[in-house]
Amino acid sequence: MVQLALSRRLRRTPFSDGVEAAGVKAYSVYNHMLLPAVFRSPEEDYRHLKEAVQVWDVSCERQVELRGPDSNRLMQLLTPRDLRPMLPGQCYYVPIVDETGGMLNDPVAVKLAEDRWWVSIADSDLLYWIKGLAYGYRLDVLVDEPDVSPLAVQGPRAEDLMASVFGDRVRDIRFFKFDLLDFNGRDLVVARSGYSKQGGFEIYVEGEDIGMPLWNALMEAGKPLDVHAGCPNLIERIEGGLLSYGNDMTDDNTPHECGLGRFCNTQTAIGCVGRDALLRVAKEGPVRQIRPVSIHGRVPPCDRHWPVKAGDTVVGRISSAAWSPDFDTTVAIGMVRMTHWEPGTELTVHTQDGPVPATVQETFWN
Amino acid sequence: MVQLALSRRLRRTPFSDGVEAAGVKAYSVYNHMLLPAVFRSPEEDYRHLKEAVQVWDVSCERQVELRGPDSNRLMQLLTPRDLRPMLPGQCYYVPIVDETGGMLNDPVAVKLAEDRWWVSIADSDLLYWIKGLAYGYRLDVLVDEPDVSPLAVQGPRAEDLMASVFGDRVRDIRFFKFDLLDFNGRDLVVARSGYSKQGGFEIYVEGEDIGMPLWNALMEAGKPLDVHAGCPNLIERIEGGLLSYGNDMTDDNTPHECGLGRFCNTQTAIGCVGRDALLRVAKEGPVRQIRPVSIHGRVPPCDRHWPVKAGDTVVGRISSAAWSPDFDTTVAIGMVRMTHWEPGTELTVHTQDGPVPATVQETFWN
Repeated sequence: MVQLALSRRLRRTPFSDGVEAAGVKAYSVYNHMLLPAVFRSPEEDYRHLKEAVQVWDVSCERQVELRGPDSNRLMQLLTPRDLRPMLPGQCYYVPIVDETGGMLNDPVAVKLAEDRWWVSIADSDLLYWIKGLAYGYRLDVLVDEPDVSPLAVQGPRAEDLMASVFGDRVRDIRFFKFDLLDFNGRDLVVARSGYSKQGGFEIYVEGEDIGMPLWNALMEAGKPLDVHAGCPNLIERIEGGLLSYGNDMTDDNTPHECGLGRFCNTQTAIGCVGRDALLRVAKEGPVRQIRPVSIHGRVPPCDRHWPVKAGDTVVGRISSAAWSPDFDTTVAIGMVRMTHWEPGTELTVHTQDGPVPATVQETFWN
Repeated sequence: MVQLALSRRLRRTPFSDGVEAAGVKAYSVYNHMLLPAVFRSPEEDYRHLKEAVQVWDVSCERQVELRGPDSNRLMQLLTPRDLRPMLPGQCYYVPIVDETGGMLNDPVAVKLAEDRWWVSIADSDLLYWIKGLAYGYRLDVLVDEPDVSPLAVQGPRAEDLMASVFGDRVRDIRFFKFDLLDFNGRDLVVARSGYSKQGGFEIYVEGEDIGMPLWNALMEAGKPLDVHAGCPNLIERIEGGLLSYGNDMTDDNTPHECGLGRFCNTQTAIGCVGRDALLRVAKEGPVRQIRPVSIHGRVPPCDRHWPVKAGDTVVGRISSAAWSPDFDTTVAIGMVRMTHWEPGTELTVHTQDGPVPATVQETFWN
């Protein structure tokens, strides 16, 4: 690791004071904002996430708000997922594609009302694409970034912690649904969602002034539950097969290559700007695809694509990797050509420190 | 400073191996890419930049390429600067605004040919805005990010170093003009430009394979000139009044607030999407504007906006600040309301460590 030079351009969040007081050891930068990456150590954070409950500053999941009579039309322009069945109160994971079918982002869309959406974005300025389309199409819609910062509560004890602060109504929220719950006299969107497989909630904190009061309330109420500040954990998210935009996919990739075909209804997603480009791949399937890969040995931090070879031939690349204490292997996310993507295929991963043997897995670990 | 957690999402550059070998101590993240921030110390790097010559990895100034019959029309959509006088071979600094006149980026546009541009961007995904507009307007133009990584050579000995690698033709390149010069059999765009006031060049390195060969050639040829790896220097850029998008301005600001009115020809920039929104402010002037501010004392790193007060009233904010050894004061960039922007006005800057007295300056320092 190296040092991060701080500046205003790498924005602090409404929870940064709490994050610092909790002893953050490393940051990443995500959507021009600080994203905590390590508190105690990646392994300690991992163990604790799987056993207790953590509060995560994921303010960097910035929101793009769409509001007005054309907001539904604009949302459907963005994605090959058919949004017609979606009701207010629901969240959808939506691949966002350009006119070539390349991934621009993979956010969660929150339908607040029939004419109002929040798009909770991964690491790219999706606001610019949406504003550009809205302006070019002359749509009757407001598009901007509201003062909303998500705070995640994740782990097996997340529901108990949330109930102690928001009341038992949180227990009735189903997966990828949200409810409006009161905190300090303000109604906040609380969804059952989050970037881990341990279960939990995301609170869309509207108004930075209540950031630290909410952080402190959760930390105080969580003491008996061994709450701790945490963050998306590299090991846990790879075990669970949670992709990261910019790591595991870029605008070079179609949703189908990313294994996101189940979130595409390309035939019926009328209006999607990438629809024409995706119809063929939706029918025939991609020639390379995301695969879980087990690497048989320790590896350095995956800060670049590692070529994956069969003999001397490059047949794919690894984009995320970490040692898993629970599965006693290096868990990794690869993009592998169809000639070599069958589970059990033996390959070689070429890291900056040298080659390591690896095997394509049937499924992710968690 | 804190640690930076590395991942593929924070992209390495064609020069990263050289940057690491030169002992980079801190990075920033800029356009999803690593930007060196410190080599020896900010003060040592500053002194050396003003006295010798440095090679800077500014790959993070990513390019957006516009190519095709509608590329000129698309460029003019983006900016209130009138581009009609611009010829191939020239570079223009162009404020980019949205339909409200808010700044989306402040790149240098490089006109390669009558139907081909590179836009060398500051820290936001301008590609998304340009692609969105191009698609919405159904323009006949290709828009994408080419494999081009700028390498800057800056400092008083920059011309001598460049001449020793590219030949004496570099000496004839005038400010904000470019020439095509050969390196290893490849023609590279070489412009007299750069993000310092010490003079120098930017080489648009096309093809990552020649990144390290060029880096090494410059380092080898520069030995008699005391060349060193460097980076945009916080102290020097504030002294010189060079603004930083995301620090000193955001989409909340018009070009006029940023003191960029001289780069706007709002009346004649027909087609610019922000023209209607900017006509009034172009005529009447803004009510707050960027000002050089001298802060009378040492301050912590400026990692957030610092309120600037006159008595109890907030009249502006500081967005960048650093101690200047040469001017024996803390040099800073502020945005100040017109009621308090006259040179000599005494104000108070409220940092996270407490208030410090300050004075509005007539001009930047360099």
